Amino acid sequence: MADRILLAHGSGGKLMHDLIRQSFVTTLGNPILEKLDDSAVFDLKGRLAFTTDSYVVSPIFFPGGDIGRLAVCGTVNDLSMTGARPLYLSLSFIIEEGLLLADLEKIVNSIGEAAAEAGVKIVTGDTKVVDKGSADRLFINTSGVGVVPEGIDISGANARPGDKIIVSGTLGDHGIAVLSQREGLRFQVPVPSDCAPLNTMVAEMLATGAEIHCLRDPTRGGLATTLNEFAQQSRVGIRLDELSLPVEPAVLGACELLGFDPLYVANEGKLVAVVAPGDTDRVLAAIRQNRYGRKAVVIGQVVGEHPGRVVLKTRLGASRIVDVLVGELLPRIC
Amino acid sequence: MADRILLAHGSGGKLMHDLIRQSFVTTLGNPILEKLDDSAVFDLKGRLAFTTDSYVVSPIFFPGGDIGRLAVCGTVNDLSMTGARPLYLSLSFIIEEGLLLADLEKIVNSIGEAAAEAGVKIVTGDTKVVDKGSADRLFINTSGVGVVPEGIDISGANARPGDKIIVSGTLGDHGIAVLSQREGLRFQVPVPSDCAPLNTMVAEMLATGAEIHCLRDPTRGGLATTLNEFAQQSRVGIRLDELSLPVEPAVLGACELLGFDPLYVANEGKLVAVVAPGDTDRVLAAIRQNRYGRKAVVIGQVVGEHPGRVVLKTRLGASRIVDVLVGELLPRIC
Repeated sequence: MADRILLAHGSGGKLMHDLIRQSFVTTLGNPILEKLDDSAVFDLKGRLAFTTDSYVVSPIFFPGGDIGRLAVCGTVNDLSMTGARPLYLSLSFIIEEGLLLADLEKIVNSIGEAAAEAGVKIVTGDTKVVDKGSADRLFINTSGVGVVPEGIDISGANARPGDKIIVSGTLGDHGIAVLSQREGLRFQVPVPSDCAPLNTMVAEMLATGAEIHCLRDPTRGGLATTLNEFAQQSRVGIRLDELSLPVEPAVLGACELLGFDPLYVANEGKLVAVVAPGDTDRVLAAIRQNRYGRKAVVIGQVVGEHPGRVVLKTRLGASRIVDVLVGELLPRIC
Repeated sequence: MADRILLAHGSGGKLMHDLIRQSFVTTLGNPILEKLDDSAVFDLKGRLAFTTDSYVVSPIFFPGGDIGRLAVCGTVNDLSMTGARPLYLSLSFIIEEGLLLADLEKIVNSIGEAAAEAGVKIVTGDTKVVDKGSADRLFINTSGVGVVPEGIDISGANARPGDKIIVSGTLGDHGIAVLSQREGLRFQVPVPSDCAPLNTMVAEMLATGAEIHCLRDPTRGGLATTLNEFAQQSRVGIRLDELSLPVEPAVLGACELLGFDPLYVANEGKLVAVVAPGDTDRVLAAIRQNRYGRKAVVIGQVVGEHPGRVVLKTRLGASRIVDVLVGELLPRIC
């Protein structure tokens, strides 16, 4: 049983200390984490951004990523979407007894790689182990803090009529990647998750000096849910052009097969930006220069009519309301 | 099924938005949380403390508290143990499908009460729902940020020979309370958990101006584990006097019955302080004036001999090494 996680790994005792020092600190270490006090302590100046997410994706390994990469990218992205520069993450594991140590090791490595890519440090953590059957392999919570640069005010409540809506790439890749792995589906063209940290992209967008009003990463509930949130928070209408929506043919095929609408399928490496109309081109150019934004496009605009509602102009020229998700589409996608 | 949590409550869609707005925001609301953006944004100055903990206690309701109160107090205490003033918490739920909404409501209320008592605000959150059998009712992660006042340097690495060791009250109450609830044990005198926020106590201790070198709350692994951590981090020896250790008779009785050593049983409303010898009396007086510190006592001292080891002088005058916990004593106690 030495190759598996035991309840004693979560006891606060010797096995837990060994696991933390030999695996987590070795892979993720930095001077703040290595102090191993009850809290990390560090200097920060300015307006702080603070966010949290628990990750329960099933399976924990999927094409294009794993729960570790997802846990870093998701929280980095939540910080970035307020315009903040992500700096420090916490890392908390809930492990089901019996998890292979080799699997945990792979995930810790993946966390280390994603944190290095995003330029963030893991500074504090926690490890709990629950008895077999009381969790499903591994859940991870990451919380994060970052600093919002002077003069930045980005919020879902800031959209104004006339603003353009940009999406940074194709829709639905993450949801379809996880689902296909879970259900053992094989498509002709495999769909990898888009899971990626977007903080560099956001920094490059902000560096243009453009008026960026809203940013959000359309994860659970997909683009449709994010746009409905903007419409409600800002009390504006949103018009989308179906023909402009970027979807990979393989994702579109999978969605048609499974009866999903890609507007509602989760993304983990995409952002939606609401931008002042005169600044659209330079924001779009900045996004497209980033490795994760090559396929960015304008997909619609903010209007004064039908406040709180998102309306799609279909490829046949008709209009239909795009509502928030009702019920459950794809459980445990993140 | 309308009285239970469904998978759709975690979908990012309508049910989730309704749950967040109608339950969480109504009970826990404040202007920062109510913005409902991807991150909370607020001003902070100075040295920041940042910590995280996931709570998996079973059962979720126990004498003297529940998982909600525990999740607030535990994280408030981890911040306090670096001398920080706790300010803001994040709150992330992993809910098993089928949890009674009434139970969730009770726990959210309990979170609100504990946060009010500790004077902290819940500013950001996350809700995930997993399918029945993939979690055990409810897990909660709270992370927290606070500010460390100028001139404070408290760390497990700061103990020096000659320092006195104070514990703020009786040992093992939380562990025995949870265990008795879980196993359906009935003792003549019921044992409630000591689960409590200690930030006010720490502020009162710091206000004395005393030289406080280390602070820690002895949770999982109990007092023995905390003192071993201090001994190793500070490379000093620690001597304990068994006769001075405060344990409630009911807890002692339960421990004897069950074969536990109260030195290893978890506490959730106690702290251990390592204090310069000349300042012991005023720190002790400050702790005793706090409602959660009436039974505070000096239990031992830091020595230059046997660095890295904790040695107990037993009531018979013998000495024995108090090692870190090996194996698992009480799983899922926090």
